[in-house]
Amino acid sequence: MTKKITIKDIAERAGVSVATVSRALSGKPGVSDQLRKEIQIKAEELGYLKNSAAISLKTSKSKTIGVIVSDIRNPFFLDFLTGVDNVLFSRGYKFLLSNSDENVEKEKVYLNWMVEHGVEGILASPVSEKDGKSSVNLYRKFYKLGIPIVLYDRTFPKETQFSSVTIDNKDSIIQALIYLKNKGHENIGIFLSKSGIYTIEERLKGFIEGCKLLNLPFKEEWIGRDLYPEEMTYNKLKELLDKKNLPTAIIATNNKITKLLVSASRKLNINIPKDLSIMGYDDLPENEIISPPITCIKQPVFEIGRIASTMLLGKINDNFSEPTKVILKAEIIERKSIQDLNKKVSHFIKT
Amino acid sequence: MTKKITIKDIAERAGVSVATVSRALSGKPGVSDQLRKEIQIKAEELGYLKNSAAISLKTSKSKTIGVIVSDIRNPFFLDFLTGVDNVLFSRGYKFLLSNSDENVEKEKVYLNWMVEHGVEGILASPVSEKDGKSSVNLYRKFYKLGIPIVLYDRTFPKETQFSSVTIDNKDSIIQALIYLKNKGHENIGIFLSKSGIYTIEERLKGFIEGCKLLNLPFKEEWIGRDLYPEEMTYNKLKELLDKKNLPTAIIATNNKITKLLVSASRKLNINIPKDLSIMGYDDLPENEIISPPITCIKQPVFEIGRIASTMLLGKINDNFSEPTKVILKAEIIERKSIQDLNKKVSHFIKT
Repeated sequence: MTKKITIKDIAERAGVSVATVSRALSGKPGVSDQLRKEIQIKAEELGYLKNSAAISLKTSKSKTIGVIVSDIRNPFFLDFLTGVDNVLFSRGYKFLLSNSDENVEKEKVYLNWMVEHGVEGILASPVSEKDGKSSVNLYRKFYKLGIPIVLYDRTFPKETQFSSVTIDNKDSIIQALIYLKNKGHENIGIFLSKSGIYTIEERLKGFIEGCKLLNLPFKEEWIGRDLYPEEMTYNKLKELLDKKNLPTAIIATNNKITKLLVSASRKLNINIPKDLSIMGYDDLPENEIISPPITCIKQPVFEIGRIASTMLLGKINDNFSEPTKVILKAEIIERKSIQDLNKKVSHFIKT
Repeated sequence: MTKKITIKDIAERAGVSVATVSRALSGKPGVSDQLRKEIQIKAEELGYLKNSAAISLKTSKSKTIGVIVSDIRNPFFLDFLTGVDNVLFSRGYKFLLSNSDENVEKEKVYLNWMVEHGVEGILASPVSEKDGKSSVNLYRKFYKLGIPIVLYDRTFPKETQFSSVTIDNKDSIIQALIYLKNKGHENIGIFLSKSGIYTIEERLKGFIEGCKLLNLPFKEEWIGRDLYPEEMTYNKLKELLDKKNLPTAIIATNNKITKLLVSASRKLNINIPKDLSIMGYDDLPENEIISPPITCIKQPVFEIGRIASTMLLGKINDNFSEPTKVILKAEIIERKSIQDLNKKVSHFIKT
């Protein structure tokens, strides 16, 4: 049954007024350095609850890093944060988490707040809106102030000064196109979420490049752009179906679009993979038990978290100031949402 | 192109040594109160980056609350945190998030750390281990220190002093049993995750009470206890199958067990719902597209987040000190993972 120790108790013990204790402990003027020190010692003896202010002033090490996620509803961050937590906890670090919610203004508020609260470094997945609006100036400012920053998942491609951990987004889509072409698909579409986001724009570039490279027909109608909010995925798929213009396969560009494509197909009586093959993005546990099990592009999400936080601690503790750009490979996990059109053909030949 | 303002710049402007500026700004002794004030003013004029210490000392309001989640890999927290973020951001509050990882020691480290970092209040889902070990003493201490706390999802049932937002866990399972009985099921099992956790123990109690109440046969073998790690769900189901002792329906007690039950059934060639009906727990978006779509017990997760954070802000800003216990109802979302055994019977009668 610990009694709460108040500044009144400290005042009694030290034989001074409550106001003096308050001034002494809060670093305010009006009390001599000698007395301040004495009061601090009494407070410690009594087990007065330390507060963050006192601690950070004393050590100037908050042992805290700030993490900005762009949309806390995205299960991507569950594995990412597990990777981060894994590295930080073992090194005695904690993290503050904030959700920018794909909103540049919110991102700025949180970034400023984190720095004002004395984080030792920042892990961020920056927002960029359709019109090119972003918080890049704020990141630049922090960089110049010497605040360690590692960008993860997303980066500012033209800003070479920032360290980052991303995947090879373009290559992930090119790999998917090669996989689909090998399975006999020529008519391939891609469904994208919000325009402007770094990863989404890169994946679109990969699609355009890949189609050229592999000599695949490229039709603007097969590109679902800006599929946000949710019903847009259904609407786009319905439009293709109504116009009898369905490609044989569609590549999703995140886990949300993957699920929306599957449920929209179900509602529209489109059989996966017979009528339409789907290449998912992100390997969530449910991909195994969705009907049909989803073939997908798997990002090494846990590893992104581990590497980004290890890099950040390196910057904080060993002054690694050179920008490092880590680019990880995605891989394809094969399940049953993609039809092998070659087999269909050979079947016809045989009979 | 903002230049980073260092203490050197402040020293130059104030005409004193760097060491003096450092002492003055960090609240250390060795500098007069008058000079300290002058240096602080110069620092502010130059736009020296404020740190958290300075800010919290000045305002004593950190406008920050601490959130402890028990396992960041659980998608439950995605909706919960969206609800929290929703309330806090609009009221100018931010949150620190920490993951106790179902580990009492880790929970203590984080709780202490949050309080030391000056959070104005705490939202926590406390850990309790199999042997009854928990951080309840630390919560009691914080309560006595007057730190506003709201427990969510889990609570300490014997500690009436804490405010909490939970669902009626027992009732959720009784509802599920009634639903299953109405569909003609008599032989019903339940698969539980880690023992000791508040919600899991309550759900087990609901199962035992419900079986009595509804006059259902109760077999210890149909209870899967402590299904952790993952392969335990598969092993338990296989054991029941091998012994030809499968119940007609199994109730899962969280979203992880739900998914594991579906994938284990698939591996064991158990058809859902023909050979086995499954009542899932938690309504995740993928429940719609899993094969078969999962009938489940839906917790109002987003609402838990909204209500818990609103209550906490009430405690912080309006000094609501009376403990409030909010208990929300779960509901059943009907899909296709439960067979109607009555229909099967009537079919036989007709022919």
